[in-house]
Amino acid sequence: MTERNIRVEPTNRLAVEDQEVEIVERKGIGHPDSICDGVAERVSQALAQAYLERVGKPLHYNTDETQLVAGSAAPAFGGGEIQEPIYLLIVGRATKEYEGTKIPAETIALEAAREYLNEEIPQLDVGRDVVVDVKLGEGSGDLQEVFGEDGAVPMANDTSFGVGHAPLTETERIVYETERRLNGEYADDNPEVGPDVKVMGKREGDHVDVTVAVAMIDEYVDDLDAYRDAVEGVREYVGDLARSITDRSVTVHVNTADDYEDGAIYLTCTGTSAEMGDDGSVGRGNRANGLITPNRPMSMEATSGKNAVNHIGKIYNLLSTDVAEAVVEEVDGIRELQIRLLSQIGRPIDQPHVADAHVVTEDGVSVADIEDEVTAIVDERLANVTSITERAIEGDLSTF
Amino acid sequence: MTERNIRVEPTNRLAVEDQEVEIVERKGIGHPDSICDGVAERVSQALAQAYLERVGKPLHYNTDETQLVAGSAAPAFGGGEIQEPIYLLIVGRATKEYEGTKIPAETIALEAAREYLNEEIPQLDVGRDVVVDVKLGEGSGDLQEVFGEDGAVPMANDTSFGVGHAPLTETERIVYETERRLNGEYADDNPEVGPDVKVMGKREGDHVDVTVAVAMIDEYVDDLDAYRDAVEGVREYVGDLARSITDRSVTVHVNTADDYEDGAIYLTCTGTSAEMGDDGSVGRGNRANGLITPNRPMSMEATSGKNAVNHIGKIYNLLSTDVAEAVVEEVDGIRELQIRLLSQIGRPIDQPHVADAHVVTEDGVSVADIEDEVTAIVDERLANVTSITERAIEGDLSTF
Amino acid sequence: MTERNIRVEPTNRLAVEDQEVEIVERKGIGHPDSICDGVAERVSQALAQAYLERVGKPLHYNTDETQLVAGSAAPAFGGGEIQEPIYLLIVGRATKEYEGTKIPAETIALEAAREYLNEEIPQLDVGRDVVVDVKLGEGSGDLQEVFGEDGAVPMANDTSFGVGHAPLTETERIVYETERRLNGEYADDNPEVGPDVKVMGKREGDHVDVTVAVAMIDEYVDDLDAYRDAVEGVREYVGDLARSITDRSVTVHVNTADDYEDGAIYLTCTGTSAEMGDDGSVGRGNRANGLITPNRPMSMEATSGKNAVNHIGKIYNLLSTDVAEAVVEEVDGIRELQIRLLSQIGRPIDQPHVADAHVVTEDGVSVADIEDEVTAIVDERLANVTSITERAIEGDLSTF
Amino acid sequence: MTERNIRVEPTNRLAVEDQEVEIVERKGIGHPDSICDGVAERVSQALAQAYLERVGKPLHYNTDETQLVAGSAAPAFGGGEIQEPIYLLIVGRATKEYEGTKIPAETIALEAAREYLNEEIPQLDVGRDVVVDVKLGEGSGDLQEVFGEDGAVPMANDTSFGVGHAPLTETERIVYETERRLNGEYADDNPEVGPDVKVMGKREGDHVDVTVAVAMIDEYVDDLDAYRDAVEGVREYVGDLARSITDRSVTVHVNTADDYEDGAIYLTCTGTSAEMGDDGSVGRGNRANGLITPNRPMSMEATSGKNAVNHIGKIYNLLSTDVAEAVVEEVDGIRELQIRLLSQIGRPIDQPHVADAHVVTEDGVSVADIEDEVTAIVDERLANVTSITERAIEGDLSTF
Repeated sequence: MTERNIRVEPTNRLAVEDQEVEIVERKGIGHPDSICDGVAERVSQALAQAYLERVGKPLHYNTDETQLVAGSAAPAFGGGEIQEPIYLLIVGRATKEYEGTKIPAETIALEAAREYLNEEIPQLDVGRDVVVDVKLGEGSGDLQEVFGEDGAVPMANDTSFGVGHAPLTETERIVYETERRLNGEYADDNPEVGPDVKVMGKREGDHVDVTVAVAMIDEYVDDLDAYRDAVEGVREYVGDLARSITDRSVTVHVNTADDYEDGAIYLTCTGTSAEMGDDGSVGRGNRANGLITPNRPMSMEATSGKNAVNHIGKIYNLLSTDVAEAVVEEVDGIRELQIRLLSQIGRPIDQPHVADAHVVTEDGVSVADIEDEVTAIVDERLANVTSITERAIEGDLSTF
Repeated sequence: MTERNIRVEPTNRLAVEDQEVEIVERKGIGHPDSICDGVAERVSQALAQAYLERVGKPLHYNTDETQLVAGSAAPAFGGGEIQEPIYLLIVGRATKEYEGTKIPAETIALEAAREYLNEEIPQLDVGRDVVVDVKLGEGSGDLQEVFGEDGAVPMANDTSFGVGHAPLTETERIVYETERRLNGEYADDNPEVGPDVKVMGKREGDHVDVTVAVAMIDEYVDDLDAYRDAVEGVREYVGDLARSITDRSVTVHVNTADDYEDGAIYLTCTGTSAEMGDDGSVGRGNRANGLITPNRPMSMEATSGKNAVNHIGKIYNLLSTDVAEAVVEEVDGIRELQIRLLSQIGRPIDQPHVADAHVVTEDGVSVADIEDEVTAIVDERLANVTSITERAIEGDLSTF
Repeated sequence: MTERNIRVEPTNRLAVEDQEVEIVERKGIGHPDSICDGVAERVSQALAQAYLERVGKPLHYNTDETQLVAGSAAPAFGGGEIQEPIYLLIVGRATKEYEGTKIPAETIALEAAREYLNEEIPQLDVGRDVVVDVKLGEGSGDLQEVFGEDGAVPMANDTSFGVGHAPLTETERIVYETERRLNGEYADDNPEVGPDVKVMGKREGDHVDVTVAVAMIDEYVDDLDAYRDAVEGVREYVGDLARSITDRSVTVHVNTADDYEDGAIYLTCTGTSAEMGDDGSVGRGNRANGLITPNRPMSMEATSGKNAVNHIGKIYNLLSTDVAEAVVEEVDGIRELQIRLLSQIGRPIDQPHVADAHVVTEDGVSVADIEDEVTAIVDERLANVTSITERAIEGDLSTF
Repeated sequence: MTERNIRVEPTNRLAVEDQEVEIVERKGIGHPDSICDGVAERVSQALAQAYLERVGKPLHYNTDETQLVAGSAAPAFGGGEIQEPIYLLIVGRATKEYEGTKIPAETIALEAAREYLNEEIPQLDVGRDVVVDVKLGEGSGDLQEVFGEDGAVPMANDTSFGVGHAPLTETERIVYETERRLNGEYADDNPEVGPDVKVMGKREGDHVDVTVAVAMIDEYVDDLDAYRDAVEGVREYVGDLARSITDRSVTVHVNTADDYEDGAIYLTCTGTSAEMGDDGSVGRGNRANGLITPNRPMSMEATSGKNAVNHIGKIYNLLSTDVAEAVVEEVDGIRELQIRLLSQIGRPIDQPHVADAHVVTEDGVSVADIEDEVTAIVDERLANVTSITERAIEGDLSTF
């Protein structure tokens, strides 16, 4: 085992928390792009599990290309209906036969997508409101041999990189938690809140604007007054949530495009704008940490749907985030940390070409003080890189 | 009301029952062509009902173009699996908006198709084993005005004709009943019998060969012995059935393409050959009376999926069969009857251009003896032509 | 070589020419159903040729399931435009690999379809006005072995039958020639006549009504007067043509659904109703002899697109027509002839289970007089059955 | 006119040129993701032009969702063939009717896509090697009214941002120019170089690694020796090019995944990996400046295919790059400049919520020295924001 090339360096810029303007976005679970991410990732997990069960090892696949074509709908207070179905095309590559064993990749994909949609967008009647179609071709022949021998660490399939950050800034936490909780505890008590919750946070100095767009579900909204109440309820909830995270001043805006006079409100049958006019596809929304953070370096790589065995873009995006969180939890004195992992095609994935940690330390702490600690954690996590694969296949790691 | 143009004439040929060679075929409910017929017709009924409920009258539509693309499957004793899903494309025309009321034709179609498949091919998991897609365009504008005023008899939309026969010959009854009962009482007790039962009857003189192809369902067949037993069970059942209908000699052949030595048997996961290699489409199989009868004049018109309000091909095919059956039931002395209804575009559908009855009478009966009786029944049925529309919309008339 | 089972018998009914009412229809080359027939057959020929070139023998395929979904159009005097493209889905089965040689069945199919459409519907811009898609699956494994050894006569793949007639009645000739010549010499001089020409002939006693629907091409029609002239031109041409074939009285109706006051005329951008509202599929229109003839026994079999090597439905439909024509040409004294060929699955295709000829002889001629001659011709043609395959593959036999 | 909110600030970090590790990537014009970007953008331009021509103003549309499903191919020295076609689905929203004028959005899209593919991937036979399909739905109703009155500056359709940089670093220029010139002058003389050229640049300190993957076109490569020569030719050309841009040391790697012994080389029929196994979609590749630059803030927004009238993500990404380039060209003393434009939904697009310029100045220059100059240019460019729309519609601005 060669020694890993791990560097720890100062960031040489202000921590994002200290910058004057910060922008953060999260597309909720029911946003058309997120639906595609979610379906792609669920399909990916289902295929990986099928390969393990049937041939004892992962085979080549990537299902990171789901395309959603919006339907049309006629929402109405008390319950409207879908006019034209959403069309969802699952696209990708899969190995369909291996040494005589057939793997029904397309039916596995269809079933996984249906299960996912039923779980996450329950208001959609899959098969009536959504047509789910699939085109999984075979990959190029040589790719099927990429995966290493049993037990060996796989080789990187590309020269790529992943980047992760910790801890989240206040604005990031507000944006992330707003979507997660609206779609969680709040929706449990307020069924009018659909899963298509889009949150934009903008901080200027010490003021945070949180803009939330919530696709309200018509079945649970009887009239315009009820709609107003629903919007107001979200505003209050998000305001309380944000203020529990930050001491900065906070303003919350909900469904700002509404025009009550014209009757233009964000009412839907299913809780997602995919029912009416918003198309979606994989990799266009949240990064692997669940956020879009233009103040930070981001990877363009679509993490969702990629195989988690040797697709280095996926693995290193998940791993870098995981490492950053681990370091920040275990090492004191870090104000901001960025972990970047750069692969080299054909090298074992536990041996990145470069692993660098950029640190903004807290006052009174120098990089030198913490360098060894950080290096040790990065090294240990890289040595266990295949646990990322396992957790991803199990669905224990979120990719968007 | 003008008098109807009804003619009763001798057939001038041998009754089919007396011809030397007779061929009859029926594609069972699970045959790929029949699946398309059935889906198209169910969609048609659902649309008609939706129009009645929502705007109080039928609107223009025709959904007679479902296309099925076969999947691939790996059947296995005890239960195999679908490898690649069947693709079912519902095609047609529908009115999607009428005086401000929207009718969600495509979601109605998808729901109707799913219900139908669940009922008739229960072994298929719709959404996993079958992708159901839909393309319902709008018709040409002027067509939407074809339907007459409330209460008026609609005008024929085409110059077309329908033809019906009664009574069925022995061979026809054998073929028809074989499929109906195998898919009915026999399948109830013998779940290995799938709905894709294809029956060919060939009579030469006084010998009838009944050739049956049954898609056996692998989940209920444990091994080759069980398969042999299943085939033998069908042979016995069909033989008994046939002999209860005819005194002619009967030979029954079941799954004749099997080759036990090569392991080539007709085993399926779902009970339909659509799962593996047999495509299908509407109007390619059974005529409106449920049979393919090359010894008799047939209409090429696809009855399934057409609107039952003014689509004269559909109405006259259903009506002519209905009339023929009524006449034979009520009038004595008829050995064979053919009713043919010829429409003229733009004329009320209760006023066919010609309605002719060709009769083979029994010995000792002349056409003149029964002419008035026949004419009266034909006349009365034509006067009530719109009841055909109602029964078709209710699903009370089979179209294939 | 066993002796062939050939029977020659009297028809026992009136010749169609002598029946009181006769109905005949032909859907022209540009009718949506015919487009599907034509594409399916052209694809079939291209595949057969590719197999012969690449592996020296035909391989299993059937491409008899093309589905057309109509587009929408805005025709206008002087030239309108297609609004939404036609969607054409080529469906079927094809062998894509044989002993290591790959055959690109889908690209062959796409190219063949494009060529065909460019030739026959030249006003269509394929790729802009029509989306041509393809889904050619593999057949079930055992089918790939059906074709016999080199040089041997193939075995019938099914128990099926074909039926052919000769000579055509006057009404049949009128209908057939009307479409062929309108789409031939007449269109050469009158480019406003589109390929979607539908002809219905109805004879009652000695009067023939010829109803023609011609999709006029807007680019060549400047205004309503020009349209009237175009309609009138067709009426005159067809009237002259019909009277050159029959001495019976003839009335010609052209585009009877037109309503000049409402501006509802049969004007199209491309010369086919597929551009606006008329879907189509294979096997729904003309039989193998180019006509729909409800007065005669017909086969339901879709001839177009089937493989011409062992698909017995196709071969026997083409052959029976070919035989009937040959017999009538060579044997005097026949007023009407029907040839029916009944196959038995697994038997060589030159050995039909039954080949029967039903004859209406001319006055003064008995069946016995001509039986030997007829038998000899049928026998000789059956012996050369494989020439049907060759001619079909070369595109020398029309299938619709 | 309110004063614009323009800020000029120091960057507070090292210029990218001075950072230790820099990564830059460009997916060439023939990469599957770029094909989708290019088709989406061309379709977008064609629609915008059609709206202007037909109704005199832009109407609502977004066509930023093209999905490519890879085909399969059998490349061979001297020329192989496509086995299964690529499937390209154009997805988006378009206005199809406006005050009685119909706009054939789908046929316009198909034609634009075909033209684009013919221009940029000429080796592809569109319609045989690629099925181009289209699903353009209507947007939600209220969106159609978003566009402002004639002459007025449109309102931002979202709260979003764009970011642009100038000047390019050496590594960025090397990566960008490598692809542009290989697909330009070099391919003109070396037709074996296909348009799918992917370039990765990695600089560590003063060493630059340029990794190039070139899809060689089999028709122009006779054997393995010719392939080696082709690879070597690219290596030399790129080396010379890179060294003309930088004085740093450079290593060039071409088609590193090749394995000559196994015969695994990067040979294609069409010059794009889309023919075999690589799917693609919009917005997954290059940012609006043609590069992927993880060392710099990037927008996740897919620029290609968006309407250039009020889609603020598109406009601000294009504008920020345009502004950055203009400033750097006109103002001395800037080592690195980043322009960020933040919109607010409902505000005129020439009035961003914030426009900030982050500057790394050259030694001896302070931000204060140049602030006024920079502000003036930013202000002037914002005032002329609609010229971005015009140039985008004309196709004068590259989006990927």
